[in-house]
Formats: sequence, C-alpha cells, structure tokens
Amino acid sequence: MFYFGADYYPEQWPQERWPEDARLMKAAGFNVVRLAEFAWSKMEPSEGKFDFNWLDRALKTLHDQGIVALLGTPTASPPPWLMTNHPDIFRLREDGLRVTYGNRCEYCPNHPTYHDFTRRIVTALAEHYADHPEVIGWQIDNEMGNRCYCPVCRSKFQDWLKVRYGTLEKMNAVWGTEFWSHIYTDWTQIPVPLATGGSPNPGLALDFRRFISDSYVAYQQMQVDLLREACPDHLITHNFMGFGYEGLNYYDLARTLDLVSWDDYPAGFWLKDRRVTEPEALALGHDTMRGLKHQNFWVMEQQAGPSGWEIVSPTPRPGELRLWAYQSIAHGADGIVFFRWRTARYGTEQYWHGLLDHHGLPGRRYEEIKQMGAELKKVGAAIQGSSVKARVAILQSYDSRFAFQIQPNNPSFQYSEHVTHVYHALFNRNIAVDVISPQADMSNYMLVIAPALHVLDEAVAARLEQYVQAGGTLVLTPRSGVKDEANAVVNLPLPGLLAEVCGITVAEYDSLSADISQSVKFIASGLKKLGTCAARVWCDILEPAGAQVLAAYTADYYAGRPAITLNQYGKGQAVYVGTFGDVSLYQALFGWLVLKLNIPPVLNAPEGIEVAERWQGDRRLLFVLNHTNAPQKVSLPNGYINLMDGKVSHGEETIPGRDLVILASPSESAG
Amino acid sequence: MFYFGADYYPEQWPQERWPEDARLMKAAGFNVVRLAEFAWSKMEPSEGKFDFNWLDRALKTLHDQGIVALLGTPTASPPPWLMTNHPDIFRLREDGLRVTYGNRCEYCPNHPTYHDFTRRIVTALAEHYADHPEVIGWQIDNEMGNRCYCPVCRSKFQDWLKVRYGTLEKMNAVWGTEFWSHIYTDWTQIPVPLATGGSPNPGLALDFRRFISDSYVAYQQMQVDLLREACPDHLITHNFMGFGYEGLNYYDLARTLDLVSWDDYPAGFWLKDRRVTEPEALALGHDTMRGLKHQNFWVMEQQAGPSGWEIVSPTPRPGELRLWAYQSIAHGADGIVFFRWRTARYGTEQYWHGLLDHHGLPGRRYEEIKQMGAELKKVGAAIQGSSVKARVAILQSYDSRFAFQIQPNNPSFQYSEHVTHVYHALFNRNIAVDVISPQADMSNYMLVIAPALHVLDEAVAARLEQYVQAGGTLVLTPRSGVKDEANAVVNLPLPGLLAEVCGITVAEYDSLSADISQSVKFIASGLKKLGTCAARVWCDILEPAGAQVLAAYTADYYAGRPAITLNQYGKGQAVYVGTFGDVSLYQALFGWLVLKLNIPPVLNAPEGIEVAERWQGDRRLLFVLNHTNAPQKVSLPNGYINLMDGKVSHGEETIPGRDLVILASPSESAG
Amino acid sequence: MFYFGADYYPEQWPQERWPEDARLMKAAGFNVVRLAEFAWSKMEPSEGKFDFNWLDRALKTLHDQGIVALLGTPTASPPPWLMTNHPDIFRLREDGLRVTYGNRCEYCPNHPTYHDFTRRIVTALAEHYADHPEVIGWQIDNEMGNRCYCPVCRSKFQDWLKVRYGTLEKMNAVWGTEFWSHIYTDWTQIPVPLATGGSPNPGLALDFRRFISDSYVAYQQMQVDLLREACPDHLITHNFMGFGYEGLNYYDLARTLDLVSWDDYPAGFWLKDRRVTEPEALALGHDTMRGLKHQNFWVMEQQAGPSGWEIVSPTPRPGELRLWAYQSIAHGADGIVFFRWRTARYGTEQYWHGLLDHHGLPGRRYEEIKQMGAELKKVGAAIQGSSVKARVAILQSYDSRFAFQIQPNNPSFQYSEHVTHVYHALFNRNIAVDVISPQADMSNYMLVIAPALHVLDEAVAARLEQYVQAGGTLVLTPRSGVKDEANAVVNLPLPGLLAEVCGITVAEYDSLSADISQSVKFIASGLKKLGTCAARVWCDILEPAGAQVLAAYTADYYAGRPAITLNQYGKGQAVYVGTFGDVSLYQALFGWLVLKLNIPPVLNAPEGIEVAERWQGDRRLLFVLNHTNAPQKVSLPNGYINLMDGKVSHGEETIPGRDLVILASPSESAG
Repeated sequence: MFYFGADYYPEQWPQERWPEDARLMKAAGFNVVRLAEFAWSKMEPSEGKFDFNWLDRALKTLHDQGIVALLGTPTASPPPWLMTNHPDIFRLREDGLRVTYGNRCEYCPNHPTYHDFTRRIVTALAEHYADHPEVIGWQIDNEMGNRCYCPVCRSKFQDWLKVRYGTLEKMNAVWGTEFWSHIYTDWTQIPVPLATGGSPNPGLALDFRRFISDSYVAYQQMQVDLLREACPDHLITHNFMGFGYEGLNYYDLARTLDLVSWDDYPAGFWLKDRRVTEPEALALGHDTMRGLKHQNFWVMEQQAGPSGWEIVSPTPRPGELRLWAYQSIAHGADGIVFFRWRTARYGTEQYWHGLLDHHGLPGRRYEEIKQMGAELKKVGAAIQGSSVKARVAILQSYDSRFAFQIQPNNPSFQYSEHVTHVYHALFNRNIAVDVISPQADMSNYMLVIAPALHVLDEAVAARLEQYVQAGGTLVLTPRSGVKDEANAVVNLPLPGLLAEVCGITVAEYDSLSADISQSVKFIASGLKKLGTCAARVWCDILEPAGAQVLAAYTADYYAGRPAITLNQYGKGQAVYVGTFGDVSLYQALFGWLVLKLNIPPVLNAPEGIEVAERWQGDRRLLFVLNHTNAPQKVSLPNGYINLMDGKVSHGEETIPGRDLVILASPSESAG
Repeated sequence: MFYFGADYYPEQWPQERWPEDARLMKAAGFNVVRLAEFAWSKMEPSEGKFDFNWLDRALKTLHDQGIVALLGTPTASPPPWLMTNHPDIFRLREDGLRVTYGNRCEYCPNHPTYHDFTRRIVTALAEHYADHPEVIGWQIDNEMGNRCYCPVCRSKFQDWLKVRYGTLEKMNAVWGTEFWSHIYTDWTQIPVPLATGGSPNPGLALDFRRFISDSYVAYQQMQVDLLREACPDHLITHNFMGFGYEGLNYYDLARTLDLVSWDDYPAGFWLKDRRVTEPEALALGHDTMRGLKHQNFWVMEQQAGPSGWEIVSPTPRPGELRLWAYQSIAHGADGIVFFRWRTARYGTEQYWHGLLDHHGLPGRRYEEIKQMGAELKKVGAAIQGSSVKARVAILQSYDSRFAFQIQPNNPSFQYSEHVTHVYHALFNRNIAVDVISPQADMSNYMLVIAPALHVLDEAVAARLEQYVQAGGTLVLTPRSGVKDEANAVVNLPLPGLLAEVCGITVAEYDSLSADISQSVKFIASGLKKLGTCAARVWCDILEPAGAQVLAAYTADYYAGRPAITLNQYGKGQAVYVGTFGDVSLYQALFGWLVLKLNIPPVLNAPEGIEVAERWQGDRRLLFVLNHTNAPQKVSLPNGYINLMDGKVSHGEETIPGRDLVILASPSESAG
Repeated sequence: MFYFGADYYPEQWPQERWPEDARLMKAAGFNVVRLAEFAWSKMEPSEGKFDFNWLDRALKTLHDQGIVALLGTPTASPPPWLMTNHPDIFRLREDGLRVTYGNRCEYCPNHPTYHDFTRRIVTALAEHYADHPEVIGWQIDNEMGNRCYCPVCRSKFQDWLKVRYGTLEKMNAVWGTEFWSHIYTDWTQIPVPLATGGSPNPGLALDFRRFISDSYVAYQQMQVDLLREACPDHLITHNFMGFGYEGLNYYDLARTLDLVSWDDYPAGFWLKDRRVTEPEALALGHDTMRGLKHQNFWVMEQQAGPSGWEIVSPTPRPGELRLWAYQSIAHGADGIVFFRWRTARYGTEQYWHGLLDHHGLPGRRYEEIKQMGAELKKVGAAIQGSSVKARVAILQSYDSRFAFQIQPNNPSFQYSEHVTHVYHALFNRNIAVDVISPQADMSNYMLVIAPALHVLDEAVAARLEQYVQAGGTLVLTPRSGVKDEANAVVNLPLPGLLAEVCGITVAEYDSLSADISQSVKFIASGLKKLGTCAARVWCDILEPAGAQVLAAYTADYYAGRPAITLNQYGKGQAVYVGTFGDVSLYQALFGWLVLKLNIPPVLNAPEGIEVAERWQGDRRLLFVLNHTNAPQKVSLPNGYINLMDGKVSHGEETIPGRDLVILASPSESAG
C-alpha cells in the first residue's frame, strides 16, 4: 500500500466537522494521517492528568473511512503550565538571551526536568495506543535542532568533553589552547561558545556543535526506547528537514529510527529572486534523505499550498503540488503526507496553507491532489517495493558543514550551494546519485565525489584511498582534507591525507574577492573542447607530484598554473578540482568523466525535464517530469507502459507543462 | 485669533536673553508659545520640592509682548533623581532589555510609582497655573507611545484580558490556543510577546498592542482629569505624530481631549532618495489628524529648519517653511507653533534646528516666518471659524494597522504606503478627503474607501452594508475582511462579512514576489480607455456572484480572470479591487468613479499645484499651493478675492515656485 | 642596526621545532622577534605559580642564531582560571551584555582585581627578564581599546567627572542638562551611555569616550611604571592600530612610551570592492603613527600573508609583502616585524597566515622576505638614523573623531574618509606630510590643513590664529569650530573662534542627501582653470567678511554664493573650504596652493608611483615605489646612487611592477 494522506489537527476544529474532513480525505484517496503532533495541552491539560478521549474519537472518525494514523509525540511544544512552573527549561540562545513563552521548540534538550515530563507523556501515549489498530506508528517531536547555551548544557558539554578526551591535557592539545592563553586547568572553566564570547576556538566550537547534535540524538533515543518498549510493532520516524538543514548530524539522528521522513517545501518560505526552489535542489533533498539510512523514506510534510507565517508565499501554480509529490516518489518516497489538511484559522501558522483554505471548502488544490489519489490507485502497486539504484555517490559531511558554519573561509562560500552545483551537473544529465555519509560503504559506486570534504579523519582518508586503490574514481574539490577531527589545520601540505592519492600538493591558495575574474581552461589533450569555465570563491594553485594537469588558471600571477588534475592511483584515479565554480564547470568535467567511466543517464531529455528511475526487482520505472510551464517533447523508450493510461510508448511524446508520465519497462525485459 | 508661535525652552538659555526672544517673537507676529514640556528637573529639582519661579518669570516676559502659553506636562522626561531612586520604572523593550537613563520616554506607562509622581507634578503645575492669565492650556506629555514588556505590564495585561474575556475558556477559544499547545490554564501563564518568544499567536499579539494603546490612553486620562479639576477653562491637547505613526489607537487617545495637535516635519528625518516628504503625504497627515475628532487641529510642532539628532537633514529651501505652514492651515489647522524657536546648543537634539540658529541671530528662516506673521494679520479673520468639508472618506483602522505590523502578509506590503497611494489619487485631483475611523458616521459621504480593512468586526461590517444599502459607494481593496476582532481568519470565503455586499468571493489569492510582473486591464464597456495598470504585492482572483467585472488580470495562470468588480447593492454599489497597485491604478479607477458620482475637484490645476478649501459658513476659501520649485500658471475662478493683496482674480495667474495664493469667494455668493 | 624579524609563538609549536625556526629566521636576515604576547596561561599556569622556563629556552634558541626579543606583557588575554574565578572582570558591552569567555580582550580596563593580577604578572616578568641579554624591550598588552560600561566603569566615570568639573553645577552647565530634564543632583545618578539609553547627551558621550581613553592610558601607565622600575634600559612600546582606529586618544597613549609601533595590514581584513588598502591609506597610517611622538616608529605586525579569522583574505601578490614593508621604511619605520612567523594550526586566528604556512615549509612568501633581508644588509646603514622631513601638516583630532562617532552630522560623512581625501591629494603629488595633533608645534610648517576640526578649544584656536598671524597658511574644511570642549555648539556664527581668521561666517548650511548634485566652480581670477569639482555631504554657504571668494556653488538656491574663500590675515592667510569633496577638489586646490607657496614634490612621477624621502643628516634617501602591477618608467634624479645595486642613476629608468628602488643623494651634495 502506498501511504497517501495529510497532516491533520482535529483539536483545532469543532468535532462536528470531523466526519466531513474524513469523508473528503477518503474521496481524495487518502489512507493515512499524522495526528497529535502539537497537542500536549490537550493530552495533559494539567500536570499528570491525561486525556486521550478526544483523540480516540478523532482516530475512530478517520478509521471509519479507512484511514490509519501516525501519532506525533507532542514534545516540540510544551504546555503553558509546564513552562510557567519550570522556567529554567527555556533554551538560552547563542546571544545569551533566554527564550520566553509564545512559540514552540523553546526547550533545552538536555534539561533533566524536561526529560522527566517527556518520559511521562510519551509513556502515557504509548501505553494508551499500543493496541489501537488505528495507530501504525510514531513521529518523534518535530524538526528538532535548536542549539541551547544554558548552564545545564554548559555542564553537560563539560561532561561530554570528559568522555571524549579523558584528560584536560589531551583536550588542550587537540584544541591548541596555547593560542590566546586559553589553557583550561579545570573542566568547569570550559565555556559554551556564546556570541558574547566572540570568535571562538574552532576546536571548541566544532565540539559544541557535535555535543548539541548528540544531545538531540539522545533526547530522541529516550523516546524511541519508550515507544519500542510499549509498541514493538509500530513504525518510528522523525520529520527531518532535508539537505538544507545543517544543525544536527542527520546520520546519527536517523540511525535507530525505522524510517526517515522529511518536510518538503518547494515554495515553503519566501524566496528572494525566485518563486520556488529549483527542481535539482528538491531532488538533492530527496536523495540526501534517502541516503541517511540508504533506504526509502516518506515525505511527512509535502507542501499543500502557499505557506508562510507573517508573510504569505506565492501560491503554487496549477499542477505543481502534484508534480512535486510525484518527484518525491520518483526519488524514493513510499509515503506522501500533505501539510496540512486545512489551513489554521488561528496561531502563528495562520498563513501556512493546507489543501483546504481557512473556510474548509474544496478548491483547486484539493481537486489536484484528489486526481493524484485516483492515479495512485493505478500506479501504487507498481511502485510497491521499488527502489532507486545509483552508480554515483556524493559524500556529505556534517562535521565539514559544522566547520564551515564556524569558519566559512570565504564570504561567498556556502557548502550547500557548492554541493548543489556539483549535484546539479549530474541532475542535468539525469544521472542517479546517492548522497551518503563519508562513513558509508563506497564499494558499489563507479564515481564518488567528495565536495569540500573539509574535516577528514584518518579512517575516512584511508577508506577513500582504498576505494581508489581498488579501482574507484574519486573527485575532490577545494578545502578538502584541511582539518583534522579537532578542527585544527593539518600539519601537512594540502590536501593533507589525500595529497598522495591525488598526486598533487597545494602550493598556494587565493581566496577570491567577488570582483575578481578568474577561470580555468581545460588543456589536457582530448579535453580542450571543454573550453574555459569561470572559477569562483577559491583557487588552489596545484603542484603536481605525479598527476596529469587537466586544466590551468587563465589569469593573475598564477595564470597557466595547474587548476584541475587527474592522478592514476592503484587501479583507480583521483581528480582534484582546485577551484569552486558554477554548475558549468562541473557539467564540463562530469560530462567528460561519465563518458570515460561509461555511466549512462537514465534517459536523455531536454532541459527542464527530469527523468528519475526506481527499480521493482528487474522492472524499471521511469518518472518523466516536466518542471517547465510549457509542453515539452521527449523521446521515450519504445515499448514501455504508461502506468496511468496503460498505453505503450513509442518514441517522441509531448508532456504538458507541470505534468509527468510514469513508464514501466516491459515486464519481460530487465533495465 | 489665529494662534501663531513657537515652542520655546527658556530654561535652556540665560534669563538675560529672554526679553530679546520675546521681542523677536512679537516682531514675527507670534501670540503663543508652548513651554515647559521637558522641564521636570527644573520644576521639581528634588523629590517634592517644586520651583515654578523661573517659569513665572519667563511667562511674564512673554506676556509683556502679548504672548500667551500652552504648558507641557513634563512627564515625557523624568529627572535623574526619580529614575535613579526607582529603576523598576524603566521600560522593558521588546528585545527583553531594560531601557537605561540618558534620553527620554524611558518610563513604563503602567507603573504605579510613575503614576504617583505624575499625579504630584501635574497637580502642582495645574494648581499653580490655574489662575495665571498667561496660560491658556496644556499639552500632555510628548508624542506618547513606546511599548513596554515589563513584569508590571505583563500583570496588567493579564488583568486587561480578564476584563476583556471574562474566562480563560473564552480567551483560549478566540485566540485558538489549541494551535501549538498554548492552552492557558491560569491567567498568570499568559506571556507578553517579547521578541525572545518568537512569532507570537496573532490574537495575543493584537490584544497586547490594544492593551498598550489603552495603557497610554489611561495614563493620559489620569492627567486630563487632574487638569480639568484644577483648570476647568483651559484647553487640553496632546501632540500626535500624524498618519505615519501607528503605535497607538489615536481615535481613543483623542477622545477626551479638547483639541488634537500634531508634529509636522516634512523634512524632519533623513529621507532616503528624496529630500522631503511629498505634499500628498503631508496632506494625508493633516486630514488624518483632523479626522481624529472630526474637527480642526493645531500643528504643535511645525518644522522650523533642518532637523536631526546625530545627523542633519537637508535645509528647507526658501519658501518651504511658510508653504508647509500654509498647507497645514489649508487642511484645518487653527494654530501653528514652530518647533523650535532657537536651536539648542546642548543635548540630543542639537541639530534639530529652530527658526534661529544656535547663535540666536535672525536669519533667512526667521525672516520667512516673520513675513507669514504679517500676512496672517490680513488673512486671519477670514480663516477664523472656517473648516474643511469633504464628500469622500477614507477609513483608517488602527486594529488593521496593528494586525499588519504582526503579519505583513507580503514583504512589500505597507499599510501606510497603500493608503497613501489611494489618497494620492484623490489629492492629485484636488478632491477633499476626510480620513476617519471605521466607527465614524459615514452618512454624509458620497464615496467611502476602506483600504485593506483587514480586521473587521460585525458591527462595522453591518454599518458598511447599511451605507451601501442606503445609496453609498464603497471601495474595498485586498486583505479586507480577512480577520475577526481576535485576529483569527474568518471562517468564510473572503472578503468574509463583505462578500455579499461586493457580490464576489475570492477564489484564490497569489502573494506576489517582487520580480513578478502582473497587471490589470479594464475590460468593462466604457472603461476600456482606462487601459492597463500594474498590479503589485497581492492578487485576489475573484469569483463574481452577481458583480460586474470591471478589470481582469493579464498574466500567469489567472490571466483573464476578474481583478476588479462592481456590485449594485441596495441603492448603492460596492467596488472590490482585488490587487494593490501604484497610484496610477487608483487614479484610473477614481477618475472614472468621481465622474460617475459627480464629485467635483476643488479646482482643476496642473500637477504640483495643490488646491484645498475651507468654508467659513458660506464663504469659500481657496488655498492654491505651488509645491514645485518653478512658477506655475493656474486658472483661478473669476471674482475671488486674493486675501493677501486684496486683488480680484480673473483667470490665469502665475504663482511663483514654493509660493501660494489664498482666495476667498465673493461674499455675496455661496460656494 | 635595522630591526627585522617576526612575531613568534614558540608555545604553540613543539620544542623540537624551535631550532629549525631559528635557523630559517637567521637565513632570512632576521635579528628580532616579538614573543610571549598571549602566553599568560603558560607563564602563570595557576594563580601565583610562575613558569618562565619554556620562554628562557625559546629565547636561548633564538639568541643562538643572533636574534633578540621584545616581550609582550600578556594582559590582552587572561587565562581561564583568572576569569572563571573573577567573572566581574568581564567587560560590559555597549549593548548591555557581559562579554563571556572564549576570545581575548575581555577585561574591564578599570577593574581593581584585574589591575592586581596585571601588576603581579608584569612584575614577575620584568624581574625575571631584567638582566637577560636576549630581551631588549617590551610591548604592553595588544591593540588596546574596547569600551566597557560595567558598574566599576560607571563609578570610575563619575569620579573622573568630579575631577574634571569639580561641581555638578559646572558639569550640568557645560553639558546643558536642562535639555530633556537631565539635571544631575548627585554624581551617582550619572549614567554611562549604554545603547539601551538611546541617543545620549553629546557632552556626556564625548566625556565618556575621553574617560575610556584615559582608562587605557592609565592601565598602560601602570605597566610602564613597573617595567621602568625593573628594567630601566629596556625599550617600551605598544602596538597601535594606525590611522583607521579611533577608539583611544593615541597622542595620550603614546606620550610616555619610548617608541610607537603599529600593525600594518594592507590586506588584513576582507575588503569590499577592493582587494587591498590603497597605498595612500597605508602611507597615511605611517605618517599618523610617526606623528604620535613626532619620531620614527616600528611596524610590530607587518602583514606576512593572507589573513582573516573565519574567512581568508586574498593572498598578497608576489612582491607586495616586500613592497609594503619598504613603504613602511620609507615613511619612517626603524623596525619591521612580520606577523606572524608561521600560521597557527589552532585557535581563532587559524587563517591569519604567517610567512610560513601551517605545514612549516618555506614557500613563496618566505623567499620574498628572505630576499628583503639580504637587501637590508646593504641598505640598512644608509637608513640608520634617517628621518622624514615635511613642510606640510595635517591636524588630526581625536576629540573631533569621538564627536563625529557620536554625531556623524551626515549619513555619508566619515572623518577618516575625508582626511584620506585631503591626504591623497598631497600623496598624489609626492609631497611629504606630517599628521600631527592640534596641540603640536606648527611653526615649522608652510601649510597646515585642519580638516573638519570639529571640537575646538580656545587654546588651539588661539594657536591657529597665531600661526596664520605669523605667516602660516591654514586650510579649514566644513564643520570646523562647531563644538566647544564640552561638545556643545558654540554660541557664535560658524566657524566660531576661527571666523575672524577666515574672514567669513557661515550664513547657512545644507546637509546633502546622496542623490543631490552640487558642485563648486573656481571663479577667482587666475583660478578659473581649476574648473568645477563635485561637492559632497555638506555645503556651508559663506558670507565673506573680508575674504576673497575663490569658488562658488553652481546649483540649487545658493548657486553663485561663496563656497571657498581666501583671507589674508596678519602675515599669513586662511583658506576656508565650505564643502567636502572628492580627492579631485583637494587636488585642484592644493595644486594651486603648493605652487603659490613654493612647496616642491619629492619627485615628479607617474600615477601609481609613490616617492618618499628620508634624510640622514644632509643625505637624502629616495624611495621610489611602484604600487602598480606593471613596469613604470620614472625620471630619476641624476647622480643618485641605487643602494641595492650601487649603480648611479641617470634619467629615466623602468621599475618593475610591485618593485622599488632606493636612491641616495651623492654624498657631497645636500638635498
């Protein structure tokens, strides 16, 4: 069964309305809801007094229409009585100010009192719903991740450091606290990196981010344990925030969950200069979420309308909600839950629109998703159990992202933008990509790209070396291998532990100001046709030590010096790209590389058409998505079956703007 | 007598200088001063020790030259001894930080200790000056209105809510506190919306703004009561801050005053991209202030020179000070008091220039105003008792402005800018406008415009319906009728309670990003000549339910769908404008509408020439103001008398740049 | 001996590395290091336990290679144990928040406890190193100057005011506290100007800046006294921050030091729109530092590579480090110490690059400076004892800079930019300039320029008058003479006390908005060829009272009215420039003026070539510096000796890009 539904808040509407909502949901083909995510006030109206009657009634009303539920543990928003009685639970912000009541996520993740209250409500919920057939699983909390700097966290951070380093001598050594006279002689002296403390020691700052990540992981694990105990057969997930969020180590947060789910808002916030997120950025979000556990995922909040808090985003154009939801499926979603069912008339998210407007009458958006519900009845079985297969991986490192948050290196550098450029070049060629942890198994990939792998420990360096040794192709970009685990700069020529595998060292580097014009020209024989591409942000001037020079700089005092190199190493090879660049640089380079490595695209298609695939055993499913507003002609493979209308494809077909086709390979053939 | 004078601070200058100041004032035709506004330190040098001798002497020196005084109660700036002894009086800012000493307006408006000290100084002042013939009235405090978030205010806010809602159940219901688990179970749990609380519940946030407004109204009323008791025959006013200020509900603040006065600074602050406020914005300020009590007003601070605190504004050009002052009169001012007499050599407002520079010698600005003083001796009698009459009203709603502060809906939306666009279109046609409260009587207006009437209660909706029913013409713009009194979105298709009178509903809306190009084209028969106008910020896609379509959108997926409609309702009609636009949109629409309604301009005049009128019984006074730098030819009505030179107008005359003429209709004829 | 070396932090590197560092330093021609600047943690690992063994060893290792040391007193960065035990030492920032641990310079300069700890460590250091031959002197603290607003500072500020004013009456009078009711009746009422206090009284705010400056001067003096006592023969300096820094009165801070040194970072921070600081701004920095004591100086931190904390600046181009260091010498540096020797692998300044990269291997930058070390062996003797001689002085006033920080007058006005424009016009003509205090002796200068001499006391005004009376030429620009010592506006027509010497008064002024176009046209006979120059920021409309009009405004209502005047006064003359302008205005004016005064350039040279001179008795040294990237032809004086290659110059020579020549006049001739 493909899970299809909406996030629903019955507590925000009169009970008399519930049957109508359930009826409309069923009519739209819905079979699942997420419920009770922010309902602590309703579940525990005063300390220790629990009330699940209203929720039982809501679940029943829905179940009568064949709809099951995932329940949210309500800990993302504690009730007023709790926070009034225990004001020391409020988070302390980086600027040194205490959060006050009025929004959500105001809690310190390490506070023992909050842990106590969490245990009680989660236990009560879990025990109550352990045997309710309407409930199939749980979402823990909501979009976790605000850093807290309170005295409790400071003390826990000191404990965490004790465990990590054992002795102050070790910690002082790896942080290099001789700098600026910061040698700590007692664990209690160690501060948290408040903004009032100024630019911190990079080692301390990175460890604090790791500590906060571990704090949320532990807070979630406490809930996981309680739920597993009471409801061993239920699914457990958390709603993640995609590729763009970098406050927590998502690999750690996903580890013990059954399932990753995430919140996909292509037009979710107000976007400067563009109305919606570009399709490649959405695709990167999906592939990153799929990579957290290397398995299919859900979209727990799929955009349902204009969104915003104090402001309202542009409205999704006709077809977009459906197209975005199918894109989620194309990249591995096994469940689509729209946020939200009906737009709230009250509260901070008054303008975060659901499928229904405030007035509750079905309109354009509801009808569009209702159509999709009908389609899924035809398509669902084919999707069932299918998954994405990729031969190319991008390594994504939260340690590196934390380090770049602390020291961006260049005012124009953004890790997320850089990775998006790299990904975009592959997306444009319809090449399937896995976005994985540097700790993940790389042996199945023909090509591994490690963009700006800034923080690099010896184990990962060794595994990358082995990957190349064994025949893999590795691509590195600037600022890789610069930092050790403690966020200290390595005591080696760059790229440090990867210099040998790359067959180069970095002789000098130049951090570019935005007004400087620099570029790289491909000069290796056979590559000259790739021409010249703009260089941006950073230039490593390379000193080959065995590597072949693919491209050289064109300007300034290092004109003619090596910019991109290729090194044969063991049975494999390593490409070092010495500068950041726009998508065009990576398109040129990868265009050549995938040809050389014989990595085919899913399908050749015009610009604006995305083609993704899932495999159901040997059966290949093609999702051909037209992200443009105009009809596009696409050459489809012969003999594939269009799953919506059952017709067999034969060459060129026209796909309307913001529309798609889903094809399945003929059942007798393998892809 | 027309009141003409300056704001004067004798305490800031040596007593020996006072007679010279009084002499220069008299020579300029001055007959009034405002005094003692910030002189608490001088009046009560230590707790309970009052000293009014210096003020008595200053009043006498002025009175010897025929000049009377309004006294300011000095509560806008408490003395150091008071604030040092009672530091809990300092306001707590929205960011959670306490104000500290060093400026002014640092007090919490609800603090009982501050109320005590206020009562004492105001009582002492009032009793001392009750029978001084030099004193004709009082200005309370100065430009009131900073929000305070201190514990006293929090507690008073909770009390205020108790009175408003009676029960927590009711309050929770109208705020919708089920959202994000905010159900309050004790009044003391309710927070104030500090910035550290994040985006607040819109209901709570709106009520807090109302509470702060009520707090200042009450604080002022305490002073009004004391003054009325001691000085029953004195005028009582407060100096308001025009149309642009939206921190308090000015209708409430004006209610029990005898007189509204305001502070008119056309070049008062540093203006990006323009040297001075545009004339239409100044005119809107005057009309808004006149509308607070629907009666004439004073300008208590009329700009007297370059202004600024840390920076200095461009200097007013020759003629501008006089022109601005006459514009004030044209719109209903019965008193003009220049701020300030002489530029302070000390203090924060060192660069807020008076008519005299720091050195105290008469210069260009003094001479210009002295000329005006001489003119007013000729013109004053004609102005006496005259007032403005308008057939068009704009409804201005502080509740809506508060709501838009909390949720602007679109990053480019500003209520004040939108209303200015609407007003500007009428100003450009020299059509007199009243700017009034939604609660005001509308029966005398042929046309009522309710721009973005966002928060709409049932009573106002009913009155608007009755107005149209009875034959009125109502114009609405987007985001009207969206919110109920509690700042919740109505449970109805938009524009909610006004949908029926407009004969439409809003099928969808699109909040525009700034890079999107959209426009409306007039398509109704007879309106096509109005052409196409740019749409901005927001588009309501209208579904007619009886209304005629006047204009349609031209772009995007809703091209061709209704944008502006006209509905016949009862004996009247309602126009719904579905998008915001620049002045040109309203000029096109109103150009057609005033012709249809037969609302004539005061006078047809070229661009840059403002023509306003006041009526002294049947006698019509025309103020023809040239706001441009160049001479302009204007066709004046025949037979009118130029009040400055006594000549009779006959057709076209040339008015020099930054100059004006004042005409009176022949006494035998009525206007 | 010319001092040449680097800032070195042996405590940050393994002891085994030290000999290699010393060897590389010696090979580069180094003879001096600065050491121990931030090593309090290492010197006093716990309260009262001192350890200098490691430093003794490091000094010995260096001394073995002939390298001596200046030691930093380590007070800019207290150890964790100190700050943890005494948290009230942390500075309170202007925004009211306490600094927390994690960076440096976190201390309150007035805190008695910090003074105690400072005395102990400085005494211990001084006594230990009094007789070490490796140590030649001391640098106190590091780049002092953050304002503190804590209760200790508030109390000390009140004491400071008592001393300054004697009575509250006097203080209230000069501050004009009648304004806004601020009359202080007890010293303890006086606040510090926290941001939460809003725009402060200008008198209080200026005095607070003076108080903070005096606080650091006193804190430094405490250290100076201890060092002089123990080490009477050692040099004592502090590392200043050049022209751009305006937090302290540097004339006061330099007074009792033996030597001024400063930190010269041409590409030190990330620069918007330009890669490096322009040469004239660097030259102004040197001339300002030389002017602090009117004697030669050191550069204690000469840029050694890309710099930055969280970001990395562009890398210095080949030749730049050497060129910048020679420019320092050309302007009077007698010591060059590069910051830093090797790039730190740890800590906040991980990206503040030294001569060596993190890995410690010599590279391009090291080789460039090694070349300079070799050159200095040839050139050093000629430089020995030489100094700069200038006939033109610019008066730089910290009181005025403090006053402009408080009240910038115009949003586009920056004192530093204005002075740079004035200086640039002279720099472009290769005219030597001293930048001196208004209190300095002016008798030796043919031309004295006092740009925006805003705060002017009677003594300085009298000295300027005497200077002109005696035959000097004085140039003033707008906003001069506006304020008295207490930051009150003078009770006189502007330019106040200088009006008579200028033979003009300011009739009106116009603060320009950025979109206004105004210019000045030279109209005096003989000056018309100077043409028309843009006016910016401010226009004083001048009323001549004896002065000749040199230039008039061209636009707006004051077109044709005087903008620049020249007044003969006594045996001298005063030019009043009524507007700010770009460099071109001052180039036009000074071009005419230096011709008239017969002040010759050091050498005529093409744009981009700087020529500076030092005099060793009668021997003239010419530094001809090519700041461009391309070779430039320069006409050198005949018969001068090139000190690097010993050749004799004869006319035109080509200087490569980013290179220089140093010439000495023939020994028989005087310059």
